[in-house]
Amino acid sequence: MPSSFQEMWAELLPVGRHAGSGGYRRFAWTSADTECRDWFREQAAARGLDVETDRNGNQWAWLGDPSAGDAVVTGSHLDSVPDGGAFDGPLGVVSAFAALDELAARGVRPSRPVAVVNFGDEEGARFGLACAGSRLTAGQLTPERAAALRDADGVTLTQAMERAGHDPEAIGPDDERLARIGVFVELHVEQGRHLAGTGSPVGVASAIWPHGRWRFDFRGEANHAGTTRMQDRHDPMPAYAATMLAARERAAAAGARATFGKLLVEPNGVNAVPSLVRAWLDARAADEETLALLLGTIEDAAREHAAREGVEVGLERESFTPVVDFAPALRDELVRLLAARRPYEVPVLPTGAGHDAGILAAKVPTAMLFVRNPTGVSHSPAEHAREDDCVAGVEALADVLEGLACR
Amino acid sequence: MPSSFQEMWAELLPVGRHAGSGGYRRFAWTSADTECRDWFREQAAARGLDVETDRNGNQWAWLGDPSAGDAVVTGSHLDSVPDGGAFDGPLGVVSAFAALDELAARGVRPSRPVAVVNFGDEEGARFGLACAGSRLTAGQLTPERAAALRDADGVTLTQAMERAGHDPEAIGPDDERLARIGVFVELHVEQGRHLAGTGSPVGVASAIWPHGRWRFDFRGEANHAGTTRMQDRHDPMPAYAATMLAARERAAAAGARATFGKLLVEPNGVNAVPSLVRAWLDARAADEETLALLLGTIEDAAREHAAREGVEVGLERESFTPVVDFAPALRDELVRLLAARRPYEVPVLPTGAGHDAGILAAKVPTAMLFVRNPTGVSHSPAEHAREDDCVAGVEALADVLEGLACR
Repeated sequence: MPSSFQEMWAELLPVGRHAGSGGYRRFAWTSADTECRDWFREQAAARGLDVETDRNGNQWAWLGDPSAGDAVVTGSHLDSVPDGGAFDGPLGVVSAFAALDELAARGVRPSRPVAVVNFGDEEGARFGLACAGSRLTAGQLTPERAAALRDADGVTLTQAMERAGHDPEAIGPDDERLARIGVFVELHVEQGRHLAGTGSPVGVASAIWPHGRWRFDFRGEANHAGTTRMQDRHDPMPAYAATMLAARERAAAAGARATFGKLLVEPNGVNAVPSLVRAWLDARAADEETLALLLGTIEDAAREHAAREGVEVGLERESFTPVVDFAPALRDELVRLLAARRPYEVPVLPTGAGHDAGILAAKVPTAMLFVRNPTGVSHSPAEHAREDDCVAGVEALADVLEGLACR
Repeated sequence: MPSSFQEMWAELLPVGRHAGSGGYRRFAWTSADTECRDWFREQAAARGLDVETDRNGNQWAWLGDPSAGDAVVTGSHLDSVPDGGAFDGPLGVVSAFAALDELAARGVRPSRPVAVVNFGDEEGARFGLACAGSRLTAGQLTPERAAALRDADGVTLTQAMERAGHDPEAIGPDDERLARIGVFVELHVEQGRHLAGTGSPVGVASAIWPHGRWRFDFRGEANHAGTTRMQDRHDPMPAYAATMLAARERAAAAGARATFGKLLVEPNGVNAVPSLVRAWLDARAADEETLALLLGTIEDAAREHAAREGVEVGLERESFTPVVDFAPALRDELVRLLAARRPYEVPVLPTGAGHDAGILAAKVPTAMLFVRNPTGVSHSPAEHAREDDCVAGVEALADVLEGLACR
């Protein structure tokens, strides 16, 4: 008798939880990650599924023969951002196992192979690059670049893999494995409030917004905080502050997102005018044109305020992910399958968050289900979904698997 | 034959210099500090001066019998801020030794005891509290509070003293030592531009501005940077940014100083709306009323912007030093002594920087000489004074010592 949804949830809940913050620190290839992977293996074994770990460290639990091809794959990830919540990732994996149990309870048996997947290092919290596991598999991250990634302690990704018992020798594209997949469906807690306040516990994704990260280096001149007249300063801090406020205002006006969530200040002394404010911008919009316009206005603001303060500003794009439009036919089929069985409207909604599903969408037909989040809060210990909404998510995912794999 | 000013300067120049930044990292009770202390001992020995290290780690080099009392003491400090310049502190110590050499060259012999002092831990770069050595001696820092100070690695001040070979057992007030001092004169590089562009290489201090440090904690809610609509955020960053800009504007209008040079952001993730922005304000003004008004307007701005962003703000005063008015009779005597010998005007100017002289002023008649700084830059590798101005500083200090101690 495999664990119920509630039992699986309770088993995962303490893993990697930080007592001080109440948030999760399940970073790739750490002991918390290993605990999550062991849990995955146990759940698969309890259901008689065959587990394999691929060359890039992603885990697959198979019902049926993978080599038969045209598989229906579902799942998500188990790692977390620093002090993240319990739902982002694990809800999709736990719901996948629970949906298989629901199919069994319904007495239906898949006619296509079905797999539950746990993608490695989705959040990129340790090595700085999101979706490393799925990117490697899909050829969107070269083995050379991956091998050079380092964590804050200087440990490389390959060293971290080795220490966690995974052979890093063969990391890289895995077209053979992707060729087995007929369709990928990822269930995820919603990270916004489209569903909150509606009568719908579950929605279907339309697209992932284009998004990227840019690093702004505001460079001025360190000086004495007590003796340097305000008008004699070359202080990068007000140039940064004014740019930050401009970014926020323009993102709000464009219905887009602009966030300065990470800063590095040098020398970071109380009594010193800073010489450097390094600020990372995360920007996203519904389409690439809006995003490019937003970035242009933020860049203009940075240059204008830097000139006014007598400081330099340098700008570097660290990453960019174009818009992902999920396969329209598959999306429509999901809506149809759910509408036929469920007593609620099935909204179709975009998301500003990146996902493994967004990476796989370039290779195989891909769809996503979102489970209602009453506050929209995510990447925070306060992230939440109601238990009855989680159960509705499992039922919806079972409907989808039944509709796709059991005809 | 003791080292000349230029030789002493050249000997100190490489000590604690960071190859990457070109700035100095001479932090209290580190190996760089020990090197500076060894240098001080050698200079004293080369001049036949008796060296003692007091209970708080300050070094004294005596010409004449300390117990005779009514001593004329001069000197400064040898430690630095992180990536500080070569002049802030060392110029006063090197000039003190050179001024004694100048007296000898003039053939005059002090009739009062004279000492050169090197105060320990003036910048507070390692343990966070400026002027720790002079404060302990003057009773402005209790041994209990000093013993509890910790550096960034958790090492206590007493542990650091022990490791550097100084017995921390007896740290605390030292009235007996202070009672020997008739007058203290500190020479320092100017940390502003009062003298720049004038014909005067040397000026005399009138007062030290009141100054303090306040910690602002802007607390909001961590959230996903991609999915959280701008209007749904509780982001402490714009509240901080708007407060920072308001502080700068109001300080400029009041002819005062307000600096946010140190920040801590949590969780400091590129794709997370921050939960906390902790920002330290260094504020100073010509008088305490102006400073209180400035702080009040900054506090009002912080509360207003925090309320607008839906975040909390907490404010804590971490330190405050009231105005220091240097002894007027001594100040006038310095101006008179210099004006009689030097072919330039002797400006009397205030400073926004704290100094050991400001601490000692509460206990003994104290004065300061400032040496012209062509750019005003300080607490930076770019800090500078011209060599001929440094020589003018030595001559002026020799005039003062001759006038005060050799009558």
